[in-house]
Amino acid sequence: MKTVRTIAELRAELGNARAAGARSVGFVPTMGALHRGHLSLVDASHAENDVVVLSIFVNPTQFTEASDLAAYPRQEAADAALAEEAGVDLIFAPSAAEMYPAGFATTVRVTGPLTETLEGAGRGDAHFDGMATVVSKLLLAVQPDAAYFGQKDAQQLLVVQRMVADLGIPARIVACPTARDSDGLALSSRNVRLSAAERERALGIPRALERVAAQLAAGEHGVSELRNTAVDVLAAAGIEPEYLAFVSPTDLTPVTVVTDAVLCAVAARVGEVRLIDNAVLNPATAGEKE
Amino acid sequence: MKTVRTIAELRAELGNARAAGARSVGFVPTMGALHRGHLSLVDASHAENDVVVLSIFVNPTQFTEASDLAAYPRQEAADAALAEEAGVDLIFAPSAAEMYPAGFATTVRVTGPLTETLEGAGRGDAHFDGMATVVSKLLLAVQPDAAYFGQKDAQQLLVVQRMVADLGIPARIVACPTARDSDGLALSSRNVRLSAAERERALGIPRALERVAAQLAAGEHGVSELRNTAVDVLAAAGIEPEYLAFVSPTDLTPVTVVTDAVLCAVAARVGEVRLIDNAVLNPATAGEKE
Repeated sequence: MKTVRTIAELRAELGNARAAGARSVGFVPTMGALHRGHLSLVDASHAENDVVVLSIFVNPTQFTEASDLAAYPRQEAADAALAEEAGVDLIFAPSAAEMYPAGFATTVRVTGPLTETLEGAGRGDAHFDGMATVVSKLLLAVQPDAAYFGQKDAQQLLVVQRMVADLGIPARIVACPTARDSDGLALSSRNVRLSAAERERALGIPRALERVAAQLAAGEHGVSELRNTAVDVLAAAGIEPEYLAFVSPTDLTPVTVVTDAVLCAVAARVGEVRLIDNAVLNPATAGEKE
Repeated sequence: MKTVRTIAELRAELGNARAAGARSVGFVPTMGALHRGHLSLVDASHAENDVVVLSIFVNPTQFTEASDLAAYPRQEAADAALAEEAGVDLIFAPSAAEMYPAGFATTVRVTGPLTETLEGAGRGDAHFDGMATVVSKLLLAVQPDAAYFGQKDAQQLLVVQRMVADLGIPARIVACPTARDSDGLALSSRNVRLSAAERERALGIPRALERVAAQLAAGEHGVSELRNTAVDVLAAAGIEPEYLAFVSPTDLTPVTVVTDAVLCAVAARVGEVRLIDNAVLNPATAGEKE
């Protein structure tokens, strides 16, 4: 495994790999602080491609809070060891100056409900502008056959899919299931910042999603009822959500009665740490109450 | 020569061409109504590449006046004949629905003086947003080795160069000199809308640029003096410029004393027709007055 820091080196390495017979390149973009969730993306990429590129770049432009950027864990040596063990062939770990040289002035922006709701409402326009811009730049740098994103960041995935389709960036975007710890907590690089007590409380989030899924499966299709259930479970864990949304899993428009798949998405602070989680839920197909 | 209307067909044709041994693809993006200016871009592309793709797409999102969009000349059959004669191999002439299918929500935006001044000030943000978005989409569709743009749209060229560098779109951007009629008028698809009398008046624009160049060569480096000259020449032709700018040819920041190359750019309406023209001028290197 090799680590490169410039787009020129990256392209040279990938050009060599393709010249040596690699038929496809898979790409896993990350902000480092790798955990089993990232490694599941590497596994998916490994299964489908000859070469796996993993990027590590804590993208300053998608952070809307300086404190969150400063606190974001950075552990490149540990990440490299994990990546190598998981079968990554090439790490691309550019500096901010490589990605945004002096005079940089371009933004890729996705407009509408995909970016204005949920994380967009909570974190401001700049978050998705920064994310879409860096992902398009990374996709154009790596030129992968496929790129792997986690369903945990469901809205990010939708924004990337929209942007890639709209601009015609020639890469397949692959959605991978959210990886969870055995207690149900969605894996996140931010979890390391939770105290033991906070982590215990944070389990209210997956528990709320599970209870909603169970209630839906039992035939409750009304979103206000489902929402009340989730709010109660979260409150019992001392969590007041920043948002708790029941929306279309394709365009994030609000749902009031669940007749088709619905995305239930939550963001909440537990202590100082902002966590997100979600589940795509399907209504019961038999024995519903209406 | 073949004409294709979808990105899928375009990629299939270019894939075949590359498989058949074409080593490089040159690309000339146009809005049709081809004239000798466009054909000079085709010539440049032809000289450097095995395959030449020309796109014809009157991009609605870069027009900020509905009347200008409606009046923009459309003559695809004539364009195809001219293109074929000039050696174009493939015309890409998509519909608006092909470029902007339902749900399209992505904008590529270049911010700062490159887009906020001159044409950006006169035509509004939407013009360069629309242009940068469609050019990035076209470049990603064609994936050319090089793309050819006219110096006549000097600001457009700078915005494209910035956007391509910033996002790392893997295409070389080639600037080609402004083509002019024998009377000096810069070639433009809009010229056909000028009456004979308007066309005579429009010659004030290249005449102003020539007079400024001569005065600069004679040692006058003060922009206010140079501007007065240009304003007088334009006024003599009954033209009041929308802007008459002396700016850096690399970042469009204003120049007050010409010590290095300067871009003199003009926009003006002659009758109903909005014309632009420019010249990159160099100060005299000997015998200047200071």
